[in-house]
Amino acid sequence: MSEVKFKRLALIGIGLIGSSIARSARLHNLADEIVCAARTADTRRVALELGIVDTAYENPLDAVKGSDLVIFCTPVGTYETLAKLVAPALEKGAIVTDVGSVKNAVVKAIGPHLPDHVDFIPGHPVAGTEKSGPAAGFAELFIGRWCILTPTGQASEDSIKKLSVFWTAMGSKVEAMDPEHHDLVLAITSHIPHLIAYNIVGTADDLEDVTQSEVIKYSAGGFRDFTRIAASDPTMWRDVFLHNKDAVLEMLGRFTEDLTALQRAIRRDDGETLFEIFSRTRAIRRQIIDAGQETPEPDFGRVHAAEDLDHKA
Amino acid sequence: MSEVKFKRLALIGIGLIGSSIARSARLHNLADEIVCAARTADTRRVALELGIVDTAYENPLDAVKGSDLVIFCTPVGTYETLAKLVAPALEKGAIVTDVGSVKNAVVKAIGPHLPDHVDFIPGHPVAGTEKSGPAAGFAELFIGRWCILTPTGQASEDSIKKLSVFWTAMGSKVEAMDPEHHDLVLAITSHIPHLIAYNIVGTADDLEDVTQSEVIKYSAGGFRDFTRIAASDPTMWRDVFLHNKDAVLEMLGRFTEDLTALQRAIRRDDGETLFEIFSRTRAIRRQIIDAGQETPEPDFGRVHAAEDLDHKA
Repeated sequence: MSEVKFKRLALIGIGLIGSSIARSARLHNLADEIVCAARTADTRRVALELGIVDTAYENPLDAVKGSDLVIFCTPVGTYETLAKLVAPALEKGAIVTDVGSVKNAVVKAIGPHLPDHVDFIPGHPVAGTEKSGPAAGFAELFIGRWCILTPTGQASEDSIKKLSVFWTAMGSKVEAMDPEHHDLVLAITSHIPHLIAYNIVGTADDLEDVTQSEVIKYSAGGFRDFTRIAASDPTMWRDVFLHNKDAVLEMLGRFTEDLTALQRAIRRDDGETLFEIFSRTRAIRRQIIDAGQETPEPDFGRVHAAEDLDHKA
Repeated sequence: MSEVKFKRLALIGIGLIGSSIARSARLHNLADEIVCAARTADTRRVALELGIVDTAYENPLDAVKGSDLVIFCTPVGTYETLAKLVAPALEKGAIVTDVGSVKNAVVKAIGPHLPDHVDFIPGHPVAGTEKSGPAAGFAELFIGRWCILTPTGQASEDSIKKLSVFWTAMGSKVEAMDPEHHDLVLAITSHIPHLIAYNIVGTADDLEDVTQSEVIKYSAGGFRDFTRIAASDPTMWRDVFLHNKDAVLEMLGRFTEDLTALQRAIRRDDGETLFEIFSRTRAIRRQIIDAGQETPEPDFGRVHAAEDLDHKA
């Protein structure tokens, strides 16, 4: 593996992902200086107290000055405004990338506003937790997870290589694909799962015949698994759906058609169809575990013991 | 807490739930003798090798003979046949219960076939993992989880009390409700979550433009959370949907209406509606964690480290 070290890494936004990059980049000595920009004084204070950045700026312009790697780590809805804002201060030869969960819209939101003398390489680390904010990050977040780059042809091979090595050094596996295909793949592996998780939590919350206290008490029957991803950052996810509309609507259409077929099978007491659909899904989970993307522990390795009860917040 | 000890506990079926009861009942000394009935020679052999039962019978009739507590632990579709089969051998004063995920259909499938001299108390421990079979069980499975009893008025208060103490001794919290309400509550907290998890895994498996290998690689974006419950036992779940048809179709209708509203918001770029729905769900997760029904660890406490990769099967 080749070595890579940046002079100054600028993280625009220092939430779960930005702060995890800061921690991991520092741990693996990938930049001489790490700075961030954050809108609120509180976030800047926390980032500094955690010791994960050298300087925390209010103005993104100040962060990108002199930086040879700039990473957008804010919700994708902010990218266009940010790109216009920082463009004049971008260093010649700097690599500009992002961590957004959609890519086609990001290419259009950022690309046109950047000067020719920088290399823009959209990126997406497929990693995260349901927590938000600078304190939620950790250096190990990217280990074993894929980072997808969607270079548009404008960036040099050398810059693409450097950015790949940066992600690999943090533990990621890197793959390149075109932005349209990324958006289709992530629609089914990430966006639709989040949408239906948010949806069922909303449906449960609205019931008249079943109380919220009952939903909570009996959530171990399956519901609680959905609440994890439905606890993810609402601003980030609003922006994902607004910026990957076509692929999400396409996949949602397929999901709904399939669900209607299941509904029909239940209504008609068609046990054979139900059994067939319920049978083929174990194999996929096995493959996800074999690919190192999931823990094989039953119930995600949740603790099933008396001590578990003491963790009550 | 009052003490309870049964003379002979008969488990009809010794899969995840049955074998967990066997382990926990033995650990807490809740029965002098623990026996099971299992259809296949292999299951009986494993149960005996694990040392979790004293005797493993092929014929359920032999298991219930002399037993003062009989628990049906097979898929609910088998209950009616089993009830007719074992009825003649049931001991006077025995408690007959089950662990099925639906209750109204179980009352009708078992109740009419039992002799008057036994106490029938339908039950449902809301606990489980995605694993199946006698080796998958563990004594701690029920700790902190709710067990719902749906007595029908036929059973004595004394028997209901004894069965409650039995579950409490294994770590459960016990609540009584009527079977119809149980089926409505579990439809939203368990049955619909399983249905949509099975469904999205099926949808992903059928795509032409996204390969299965891509679904697996990028599953950490959210999809993998759904595969856990979609890996649950297909026979058990087929039977749940066939036996809780009305409540499932009712809840599925609500889920689909809500999903259509979300789809409409995405199509119309209505970010405000999306944000509002995505915002209220964090509170529910917080309450589930506070109620001791979930781990507060980010990402379910999945390991995010290099060692995680060594767990590959």
